[in-house]
Amino acid sequence: MVEIQNWLQSVQMNLNLTRGDTARPSDNSVYMIQAYYPPKANVLKYFSSLDPRDVPARFARVTIHHGGAEEPMIRDYLVGPLPVTRATEMTHLTEIYHNKTLPYNARGYDALDWNLPEINTKIAAPLMDAYKELLGGLPNDTIVAGGAGPFGFDGSFRRFWLNWQRDTPGFWLHPLNLWQYVDVSGTDPSKWDQLKIVYNHQVFDTAESFMDAFRNGTLKRVPPVTKQEEDLSWSTRERIGALRDLDNLPGPRSVSFAGLRFRIDHDLQYVSWMGWGLYLGFDRDMGLNLWDIRFRGERIIYELKPQEALAQYTGNDPYKSSTALLDSYFGMGQSVRDLLPGYDCPDEAIYLPATTFSATGMMTRKRAICIFEQDSGRPISRHLGFERSEFGAVKGYQLVIRSIATVGKPFFKFEYIFHIDGTIEVRVSASGYLLSGFWDDEQGAYGSKIWNTTLGSLHDHAINFKVDLDVGGTQNSLLKTSLSQEVTTQPWFGDDWGEEVIQQKITREYIDNEDEALLRFPTNFQGGYTIVNTDEINKWGIPRGYAIHPGYSPVYNTIVGSKRLLKNANWARYNLAVSRRKDTEPSSSSMWNFNLPGAPPVDFHNFFDGENITQQDLVTWINVGMHHLPASEDVPNTRTNTAASSFFLTPFNYFDYDVSIESTNAILLQPPKKPGDPFSYNDYNVRPAHCVPQPPAAFEYYPEQVYDLDGKPAPPSTVEEMRKASELYLRIKFEL
Amino acid sequence: MVEIQNWLQSVQMNLNLTRGDTARPSDNSVYMIQAYYPPKANVLKYFSSLDPRDVPARFARVTIHHGGAEEPMIRDYLVGPLPVTRATEMTHLTEIYHNKTLPYNARGYDALDWNLPEINTKIAAPLMDAYKELLGGLPNDTIVAGGAGPFGFDGSFRRFWLNWQRDTPGFWLHPLNLWQYVDVSGTDPSKWDQLKIVYNHQVFDTAESFMDAFRNGTLKRVPPVTKQEEDLSWSTRERIGALRDLDNLPGPRSVSFAGLRFRIDHDLQYVSWMGWGLYLGFDRDMGLNLWDIRFRGERIIYELKPQEALAQYTGNDPYKSSTALLDSYFGMGQSVRDLLPGYDCPDEAIYLPATTFSATGMMTRKRAICIFEQDSGRPISRHLGFERSEFGAVKGYQLVIRSIATVGKPFFKFEYIFHIDGTIEVRVSASGYLLSGFWDDEQGAYGSKIWNTTLGSLHDHAINFKVDLDVGGTQNSLLKTSLSQEVTTQPWFGDDWGEEVIQQKITREYIDNEDEALLRFPTNFQGGYTIVNTDEINKWGIPRGYAIHPGYSPVYNTIVGSKRLLKNANWARYNLAVSRRKDTEPSSSSMWNFNLPGAPPVDFHNFFDGENITQQDLVTWINVGMHHLPASEDVPNTRTNTAASSFFLTPFNYFDYDVSIESTNAILLQPPKKPGDPFSYNDYNVRPAHCVPQPPAAFEYYPEQVYDLDGKPAPPSTVEEMRKASELYLRIKFEL
Repeated sequence: MVEIQNWLQSVQMNLNLTRGDTARPSDNSVYMIQAYYPPKANVLKYFSSLDPRDVPARFARVTIHHGGAEEPMIRDYLVGPLPVTRATEMTHLTEIYHNKTLPYNARGYDALDWNLPEINTKIAAPLMDAYKELLGGLPNDTIVAGGAGPFGFDGSFRRFWLNWQRDTPGFWLHPLNLWQYVDVSGTDPSKWDQLKIVYNHQVFDTAESFMDAFRNGTLKRVPPVTKQEEDLSWSTRERIGALRDLDNLPGPRSVSFAGLRFRIDHDLQYVSWMGWGLYLGFDRDMGLNLWDIRFRGERIIYELKPQEALAQYTGNDPYKSSTALLDSYFGMGQSVRDLLPGYDCPDEAIYLPATTFSATGMMTRKRAICIFEQDSGRPISRHLGFERSEFGAVKGYQLVIRSIATVGKPFFKFEYIFHIDGTIEVRVSASGYLLSGFWDDEQGAYGSKIWNTTLGSLHDHAINFKVDLDVGGTQNSLLKTSLSQEVTTQPWFGDDWGEEVIQQKITREYIDNEDEALLRFPTNFQGGYTIVNTDEINKWGIPRGYAIHPGYSPVYNTIVGSKRLLKNANWARYNLAVSRRKDTEPSSSSMWNFNLPGAPPVDFHNFFDGENITQQDLVTWINVGMHHLPASEDVPNTRTNTAASSFFLTPFNYFDYDVSIESTNAILLQPPKKPGDPFSYNDYNVRPAHCVPQPPAAFEYYPEQVYDLDGKPAPPSTVEEMRKASELYLRIKFEL
Repeated sequence: MVEIQNWLQSVQMNLNLTRGDTARPSDNSVYMIQAYYPPKANVLKYFSSLDPRDVPARFARVTIHHGGAEEPMIRDYLVGPLPVTRATEMTHLTEIYHNKTLPYNARGYDALDWNLPEINTKIAAPLMDAYKELLGGLPNDTIVAGGAGPFGFDGSFRRFWLNWQRDTPGFWLHPLNLWQYVDVSGTDPSKWDQLKIVYNHQVFDTAESFMDAFRNGTLKRVPPVTKQEEDLSWSTRERIGALRDLDNLPGPRSVSFAGLRFRIDHDLQYVSWMGWGLYLGFDRDMGLNLWDIRFRGERIIYELKPQEALAQYTGNDPYKSSTALLDSYFGMGQSVRDLLPGYDCPDEAIYLPATTFSATGMMTRKRAICIFEQDSGRPISRHLGFERSEFGAVKGYQLVIRSIATVGKPFFKFEYIFHIDGTIEVRVSASGYLLSGFWDDEQGAYGSKIWNTTLGSLHDHAINFKVDLDVGGTQNSLLKTSLSQEVTTQPWFGDDWGEEVIQQKITREYIDNEDEALLRFPTNFQGGYTIVNTDEINKWGIPRGYAIHPGYSPVYNTIVGSKRLLKNANWARYNLAVSRRKDTEPSSSSMWNFNLPGAPPVDFHNFFDGENITQQDLVTWINVGMHHLPASEDVPNTRTNTAASSFFLTPFNYFDYDVSIESTNAILLQPPKKPGDPFSYNDYNVRPAHCVPQPPAAFEYYPEQVYDLDGKPAPPSTVEEMRKASELYLRIKFEL
């Protein structure tokens, strides 16, 4: 990244770049540098030949903020081949977007913006007396602001609502009753200003009119709740309540007494376990992703990658009614946090690092990803029988690959769970603090009261995954299976039961046009969708397939037609969708989609342009999600047990039989010959080991390692710097 | 049970009873003896007073087959108070059924029936030549029969289809192409006969006409597949395939290094863990059940009990088109099997026994129930923050109470999973062999081909649970929450985004009549159902509640109106239903419902008779289920990972906050004061212990302990006897 940056800044490039860590909006600067994945055909060619000459050339995607241009704009470039040589070129990257011009008002998140003195002076300074009296504090002591989004519709403006909150631990649960609408359009911060103020349902167009009402007694007030009046520790994670019986002891712990059974090649970022093998990838927008997932030597998935995370709120205050977040804008990968050993993952998990670039420097987290094997606690298959070799069980071991991301506030745990039968469960759990609203009696339709003045705001989460299944090769079809009821007659139906029988039947249909492949699960889940290869049949003549099997909370976004998501998150309208795979349609979203709902760079619906999807290379876009109606139990933090959503990818006539029977972590029992004798058994000589396990390492948790733009370790960050990097514009500390 | 039986057989009772182990259909005999649960009011009175004088009197429910009566019939009786004294009486138990007369043709399952010589002679003997030539074997060597069901509609007849299968390990996967319709009505086996024969889609009314066609060459034949021609080991559980990398090692194992953290009172069958406490119960019909489930001292559930398990098949053969099994007929509790330590439950699980009565004796399984604590592998709550006490995690420990039942063939794992926040997940997984059909090219609409001549038959599973929630007391209401979209305007919406906003809103509605409480989850799960107490509010003024949160595969039965389930499984039409709790409506089904679809003792719809359900004692009847479209991967056995269904009961404004924050198996981090220092933390002095764990006991698995009707240990069973007890009429071995 440093090498590319130096090359970009070199004189011959003539880009007139300012370093990102000092750039003003009116400067040109590098916003992002990251790997650009090569065309699939090139990769597969190399995988088949393994000829070093077939190794695909390496390219980087570079985003430049052209703030200094006559018409300020953003552009993406391809830089390569890499490493930098004389052959290296920079070309404008346009083929992956439906919208080639990225307006400057939709530019990537930049924490520097909110710290410009113009913001402080124009927005906060005129209201200081009101803050003090109405909100019980001042921006530089007990109150703090946060921003809503999107910031724009089509790039013609860049505006958002500021939301004031009490600056106390768990500030997300402490909204006050004041909002300011702020214009931060264009490149000249001196023109930035506030446009509206809303306090307790009253609207003012200027700071003056608001302050007049405040002073002349016409303002309808709500009493502020101050720290003096209330114990605010309810919004911390401090332990309270009686000690539960035996909770002074540690609970059970998973230990691989005979050693870990998975392998990791740290250089190649390759993981293998029980017939599975895959490469790990990582990027700024959405973090961890998986490539070339093979099982028993055969590729099942070329790419498995989260695409976008939507959180759409509702309410009758300016903040909640205008907020529809798309987290790739903020960088889900950039927001990945170190895992807590023993708490986020079992003590014996193996951790892998991740490094991301940002405009102000680079950051490495040593424990960005954890990998561990777990016993699911139940056999994957089991039968009781009395004939030879009918009775037995195969243990349900799983490999888990996990990372977590905290984008400002919501906490997402991404998990890929591999089973020994060829099944993968993709699961997302949420925790952390709610984005809450100010509670008054007009809020009932938008959530639950969770504290004196706090509304747990209703919102929908939807997270889209790209699943590039390759079932027996790249040429696949989409099979829709429907279960319905039929009335049937047969010659053997008789007088006892009547001539007709009502029973269930299967209808199978290939969907051959991608326009018909924007899909929802059928009512009562009567049927489903399978990616099959009609040219590859199993031993019984059935096209081999992988089914998309719904897991927890298989939902899509409730709202259709909201202007704030008009065209930029069309994937969220369905449970899943299937389209032709194209290198030019790598993702269902982009970091700029958030601020361009009316003119998004990636409009998912444009992928569906009438193409045939019979025996083509297909991508399945699958959603997880949650309708989150908060309750008192979301305080202090949402619980991961019910805030979870998942889907399974599971072999469906892919094999000739269930291959998990291969496992030797299994038992096979034979009935006793002599009555009363125990059953004899074969445990394949795999028995529990027991010995003193490795003591878990003492717990420690360090801040991430930060590097400057030159790649040199930066001085350690202060807590305030870490907060800014973490909480983004959901907490804007005004300095006055 | 022995004492009650002796009392029933005493002269003064004048019941003319024959011992169940020798009774013929025309005799009177005791079919069942088990505990009858006392009225809830009496139990709650005792729970509040704990005065020994308030201990509810004990009663048994006794089922007698009155085969010797002029009009043969079945009756249920209450016998008590117990133990037997002069005060003990026997009264006809009628108040819990909608149908007081139980016709003899619907009588309980009795393995002796199928072993009467009449059956052998009339049904099998005339077809011996055809068996040999068409099916490749004879009933006393390589073929074996199995029965379909129900046996009747309204008690006027008792008939079923016999299905012939290859008698090889995994015989369920070896259907042949011959079915016989058998009449076993009434009490005189000499009148039992066969009514129809179907072979390869051809129907015959008599054995003679079938044998004529067989001999004269007009029968359209399919070639038999014999053992000589094919290796049939594919239907065993024998390990095949290459050893996977490192699978020679045991996988990770859960160990409570500091000792188990749950307590069991073996006498009271009482279990407690982390604020939870509950009593275990066990009965013949459905096995394990839970009572008086309390959390942090407050009762949440009075009774949590599976009610019935439905498996409805489909097909174009006589067997599959006529099969709709209700497993309580066969006795899910009676079919509970010993768990395999280390395979069905972790090595450190604690096992509890269960004993059931049957007409031929009693049976005790030492490992009928297992209880263990597990680490869910993910924290129940977690946040990253930089203010004081925002950053931390609480570990997601769970207590699991599990039993498995093999009713003939399907294997069900019932699990109750308790979480530290007050959530319970009720989960059922299925495994074991499929009930399959004979494959030919006309079967495509009814399943998948899974072997040369085997059809993996489509079927629906639905399992009903009774959940007697008591939320803050017994007086509860049903809250329906709906999420929809609204178009709204506000004075602060401006020119940027237009005057209108489309957003989500909540509608809350109390369902006040049980007739309106037969419920399905809304499309896209936009809303849900909560049992609340409107007289008990939390700190924020919201009625305390427990939500029914869907888990895996939240489905109901596909088929409506089938004559074979006309009125006897009406619970299966919904995701859930809520009715007034009555001691006279203890269960949504009965063991006789199976054979009386037209006139069931318990018609679930009769519970819904227009009563008000506002602040009443309510029962929530909740279904789990699965539409099972088999695939090749169901061979040899279905996999528990995708064959799983569950629901959660989770606090919803029940507490004032998430009480899992009480846990000391947690960590709280504070940001470092000096940049670059590690985070400081409080782990409440709970740290992983490490020492040599107890070696798991050597594996052993004994047959169940069987007792005769006198309560004396019976001689050990032969394998064939165990098979008969286990496989019921799904495998009927003819002796010729």
